[in-house]
Amino acid sequence: MGAAVSFAEPIQVPADALAGLSATLAGDLADCNRTIVEQMQSPVALIPRLAAHIVAAGGKRIRPLLTLASARMCGYPDAADRSGDRHVRLAACVEFIHTATLLHDDVVDESALRRGLASANAVFGNQASVLVGDFLFARAFQMMVADGSLRVLAILSEAAATIAEGEVLQLATQSDLATPESRYLEVIDGKTAALFAAACRIGPVLAARPEAEEEALTLFGRNLGMAFQLADDALDYSADQAALGKTVGDDFREGKVTLPVLFAFAAGDAADRGFWRRVIEERTQCEDDLAHALALLERHGAIAATIGRAAEFARAAQDALAVLPPSPWRASLAAVAEFAVNRRS
Amino acid sequence: MGAAVSFAEPIQVPADALAGLSATLAGDLADCNRTIVEQMQSPVALIPRLAAHIVAAGGKRIRPLLTLASARMCGYPDAADRSGDRHVRLAACVEFIHTATLLHDDVVDESALRRGLASANAVFGNQASVLVGDFLFARAFQMMVADGSLRVLAILSEAAATIAEGEVLQLATQSDLATPESRYLEVIDGKTAALFAAACRIGPVLAARPEAEEEALTLFGRNLGMAFQLADDALDYSADQAALGKTVGDDFREGKVTLPVLFAFAAGDAADRGFWRRVIEERTQCEDDLAHALALLERHGAIAATIGRAAEFARAAQDALAVLPPSPWRASLAAVAEFAVNRRS
Repeated sequence: MGAAVSFAEPIQVPADALAGLSATLAGDLADCNRTIVEQMQSPVALIPRLAAHIVAAGGKRIRPLLTLASARMCGYPDAADRSGDRHVRLAACVEFIHTATLLHDDVVDESALRRGLASANAVFGNQASVLVGDFLFARAFQMMVADGSLRVLAILSEAAATIAEGEVLQLATQSDLATPESRYLEVIDGKTAALFAAACRIGPVLAARPEAEEEALTLFGRNLGMAFQLADDALDYSADQAALGKTVGDDFREGKVTLPVLFAFAAGDAADRGFWRRVIEERTQCEDDLAHALALLERHGAIAATIGRAAEFARAAQDALAVLPPSPWRASLAAVAEFAVNRRS
Repeated sequence: MGAAVSFAEPIQVPADALAGLSATLAGDLADCNRTIVEQMQSPVALIPRLAAHIVAAGGKRIRPLLTLASARMCGYPDAADRSGDRHVRLAACVEFIHTATLLHDDVVDESALRRGLASANAVFGNQASVLVGDFLFARAFQMMVADGSLRVLAILSEAAATIAEGEVLQLATQSDLATPESRYLEVIDGKTAALFAAACRIGPVLAARPEAEEEALTLFGRNLGMAFQLADDALDYSADQAALGKTVGDDFREGKVTLPVLFAFAAGDAADRGFWRRVIEERTQCEDDLAHALALLERHGAIAATIGRAAEFARAAQDALAVLPPSPWRASLAAVAEFAVNRRS
């Protein structure tokens, strides 16, 4: 099956934010996409077929772009070694780890649509999704081993463990309307922000930049990840379905506690709380419930409040960049933080 | 929850085979079990709880024992460094990778019982099983990174990718009675033998032994893994249920094509083939079908033939050891190959 063909389709880069990043980054991203296609090959045909379904489906590629941009900003590859491609290969590793978590998350949340396509899970079944996720995860580690940096291996293996912890924590809290905001933020710090942070940290590590820059970019990535996930949570209740390529209310139907729901629950009266308990905790839902949920979220400003939290994290991300010398790269990363909050899908 | 308590229960070492391996190995295994308990800790309480359910449930610990024994045989730790514990920590990594695949395999095969306990999947759900498997896999890589050997990382990341390929290949063939024996052997070479081979290879790598010894132990492990899996396939249709701690016929109920079934299908008449197609390919089974299947397997000597294949691989495993100097360790590894085929559970 044409993995390469699927890949020839245009990649949805977050164009608003990264347009400034020049032909260099576009070239790196094209190289990264080629690496992804090469590395997901296997004599077992179902692997590239299923992997193509999700890896090649496009997606925002925001995590590998962060690795590529942070490396370039830090001066990797340097003038003496223009052919250096470690950032490209490691950006592909980051995307593989992300894709593995998506495949495993499909088992988790039974989401019917992802990125506008039927989820791999729905098309190929739980079993294949889990196993192909395992393959991509293992392949990412093989590629890191080939790269040879124990620092990078440490960063990404720690991120992988933290992601799993965040996802398990989410399972434990997922239908609990008594979840404090702080606990919810802990969940997304693990399941989303850890990989954003790791993706950004690889750049200064490759360029052997001082510890302070490594810490600054890690902090940038972590806050950006928080902003990105909170915006996602808001978008799930507000996005234009066609633009997002998925149905509004996925989280709702899965009974997922996200920040908008926690806000609306906290601000609601007894009747509201009874509603949320029924639809989220008991997952007893009927046809008009989503519309009612959207009305409650609107009435209590829960979406705006969530976007407000996202904007705070985005500002913290931008602040973290202050340690780094001004450059067009730095400005573009700052713009990515802007984009994370203001995107419409 | 008392992970440590569960762990205080006796570990089922394959005593027949490894009794000769002395107090040294018993001590190493106790250290390995302690390492496992330490390393599966997480602030997210469900992780050690679920991990304990499967890791601490005992099991044969055959893979970590192979790492421990191959290291000792090769002279690690050496006389100058009696405190060396890399073999212990890496044996724990091997067990974590194995446990992760078991957890993910529970999603795959929906097996209701494993090791005499309700499967983690049945108790905690698919989602938690997948995510805790991911955590153990990531934690294994963190431990390998802390160990610092890129050689070991390469061996185990390759094994992990190969296991996933084997499992996906099994999905593709699992209800297909036209699967050639060679294809079936390819499946178990990936899903089982690859990790046995990697477990054995770590010993000579730690001891920096010559390439020939590394290859010999890898070949030993690979053939042992084949023997072990084929014996497992036979046991699924013949083991004493109480001894094995699982029900006879699990593979049958899941419609899994294993070698005994392939042999019986090939030897059967048209009526037999119709029966196998119905129960395995269509998975339409009624109450007396397992008894009929057992009778057909018996009539065509399919179990004995499978054990015969297992014995061939066990002999190949023993032959591979010839390169190594004779020692009590070598004799004990040879005995493990014997045990793999002759065990009753």
